[in-house]
Amino acid sequence: MTKRVYNFCAGPAALPLEVLQQAQTELLDWHGKGLSIMEMSHRGADYTAVAAEAEQDLRDLLLIPNNYKVLFLQGGASQQFAQIPLNLMRHDQKADYIDTGIWAKKAIEEASRFAAVNVAATAKDYNYFAIPGQNEWQLSQDAAYVHYTANETIGGVEFDWIPEVGDIPLVTDMSSNILSQPIDVSKFGLIYAGAQKNIGPSGLVVLIIREDLLGNARSDCPTMLNYKVAADNDSMYNTPPTFSWYLAGLIFKWLKKQGGLEAMKKINEQKKELLYGYIDSTEFYNNPINPSNRSWMNIPFRLIDERLDKVFLEKADANGLLNLKGHRTVGGMRASIYNAVGLDAVQALVDFMKAFEKEHG
Amino acid sequence: MTKRVYNFCAGPAALPLEVLQQAQTELLDWHGKGLSIMEMSHRGADYTAVAAEAEQDLRDLLLIPNNYKVLFLQGGASQQFAQIPLNLMRHDQKADYIDTGIWAKKAIEEASRFAAVNVAATAKDYNYFAIPGQNEWQLSQDAAYVHYTANETIGGVEFDWIPEVGDIPLVTDMSSNILSQPIDVSKFGLIYAGAQKNIGPSGLVVLIIREDLLGNARSDCPTMLNYKVAADNDSMYNTPPTFSWYLAGLIFKWLKKQGGLEAMKKINEQKKELLYGYIDSTEFYNNPINPSNRSWMNIPFRLIDERLDKVFLEKADANGLLNLKGHRTVGGMRASIYNAVGLDAVQALVDFMKAFEKEHG
Repeated sequence: MTKRVYNFCAGPAALPLEVLQQAQTELLDWHGKGLSIMEMSHRGADYTAVAAEAEQDLRDLLLIPNNYKVLFLQGGASQQFAQIPLNLMRHDQKADYIDTGIWAKKAIEEASRFAAVNVAATAKDYNYFAIPGQNEWQLSQDAAYVHYTANETIGGVEFDWIPEVGDIPLVTDMSSNILSQPIDVSKFGLIYAGAQKNIGPSGLVVLIIREDLLGNARSDCPTMLNYKVAADNDSMYNTPPTFSWYLAGLIFKWLKKQGGLEAMKKINEQKKELLYGYIDSTEFYNNPINPSNRSWMNIPFRLIDERLDKVFLEKADANGLLNLKGHRTVGGMRASIYNAVGLDAVQALVDFMKAFEKEHG
Repeated sequence: MTKRVYNFCAGPAALPLEVLQQAQTELLDWHGKGLSIMEMSHRGADYTAVAAEAEQDLRDLLLIPNNYKVLFLQGGASQQFAQIPLNLMRHDQKADYIDTGIWAKKAIEEASRFAAVNVAATAKDYNYFAIPGQNEWQLSQDAAYVHYTANETIGGVEFDWIPEVGDIPLVTDMSSNILSQPIDVSKFGLIYAGAQKNIGPSGLVVLIIREDLLGNARSDCPTMLNYKVAADNDSMYNTPPTFSWYLAGLIFKWLKKQGGLEAMKKINEQKKELLYGYIDSTEFYNNPINPSNRSWMNIPFRLIDERLDKVFLEKADANGLLNLKGHRTVGGMRASIYNAVGLDAVQALVDFMKAFEKEHG
């Protein structure tokens, strides 16, 4: 018999049950065609319609303006850390980066291998518990772009504002918070997101890029990493990750059915208020992040006594609350509560945390 | 009701029914754990065991020596066209390439963007209907490596021999013929293959590399494209395409159950003899490839009267024989008969071709 747990994994993350059920039902025989979606030519009429529909649904959800291309790529956000400078920055240019934690640092480190990087602001002075306000940023006058990490999956800090950078293209890693609420795409030059949190299975990256930024790839940019090549070929310069793209499309339809991103914002707000609310109500648990920079999606927390960590995780597991262990680099706990993790899951987690506190507090 | 057609797609290609059934059964609840394989952390014990088992099964199937690493990557063979020179060739070196058709040319074109390429032999003089023998090759004395395309998916030519290149690393694109029969891995420096033919779903590349070739990536190689980084992190420097890797593992187990690659060779030989045998027995159909260079996996053929192409494809479709249209660049027909396409499928195709000839010949 199929059982389903509450899954708080940071990624690959929980997927909506309805979406998995549909994928399961049609896995051997897609829409009566007699073959799996995985077995279809990416250039056939059936698959290209699936791919185009996924793109259109994403455009509808995010209200993506017509002068933006949507690309379905591979390699994860980590590959974008190189791909962005290779596409947007000449050898003699520099780019501004904002250091807000582990993922921002990785982006900075990789970009520095290809051109000059100016770290315009760092959260280091705040112990990475807060995001420096824009009044503290030292932006360059002539940067090729400004890069920031909209949500730090490990640190659990999230921008609750969009930087103002004038005519300089604004580039952001939204891997772990895309589709969690509406955003104004027109403020950005480039948005990228690894799929395995709010979009679908791993092995897919969604990229939204303003058209005028295409066509500037450096001569040392591999063809497969060139955004313009991908855009000119509808992300099918070669065989794309067809199953992940299809599944992302199912998730976009599921999101529309939930009421779109305004509806997701409401439920995500309830979820995070429930969890942070409880954490703040007790000394037994702690989250150190500056309240206005607290991530809605990734909520790290600590027990007052870290010797209890092990038994907490064991009991959580036994109660069907999985993947609550914090990232190996930081320890403690982390609950990732993406779109597919419902209010019921967060309520179950809070109930468990309360019971655990009662027993061990 | 689930129906299943005969699928001759060049890729993404047919997958074994048993494998799809297992994936379907456990899609919502993998081994009673209460979540999908797609929803699991790639760093958790369950998933890393799946990943390691897939690697071991592949090692068993291909008898991969211990001094080779197996990498599970992304981006398709097309990304390898850049990745190979970026990892194996210094700026002042050159590499030898053998031109046998469309995929070899793509590899040559991309490599030429990163360093000097010597086209040591070309099938052009044979109209790409035959592979030049090694006595015709003009190899460099000091090449960083020698690259050839073991099977041309579009042209339908396949090496039935392994080149002898002494101490120079031999590099080969086996995207469309890997696992179709045993090969002697120890003859190679590097073997790579896009998964979407004989390995699994698209979005995965399997790479087999001799360890001494690791660690020479150029400074302009993106971290995510560096083989050593992938090897040092068991192909998990970042989140890998977990579902594709899992499904590849199921296929490796299926291959073992069929009797391994010796057994696959026998059945693949029967399949290609049945199809080529019939094509050669009639003037109505034609395959122009030099018999000893004929691909076992991708069999292009033409009708004597190309005005019949359209009705041939329509009737084939109506008879549940799908994706027989030749590649858009060459026209005609093509039957891709990978491991998952059984002798029954090839027999059904030949029966249909005979009936069609009878009607229209």
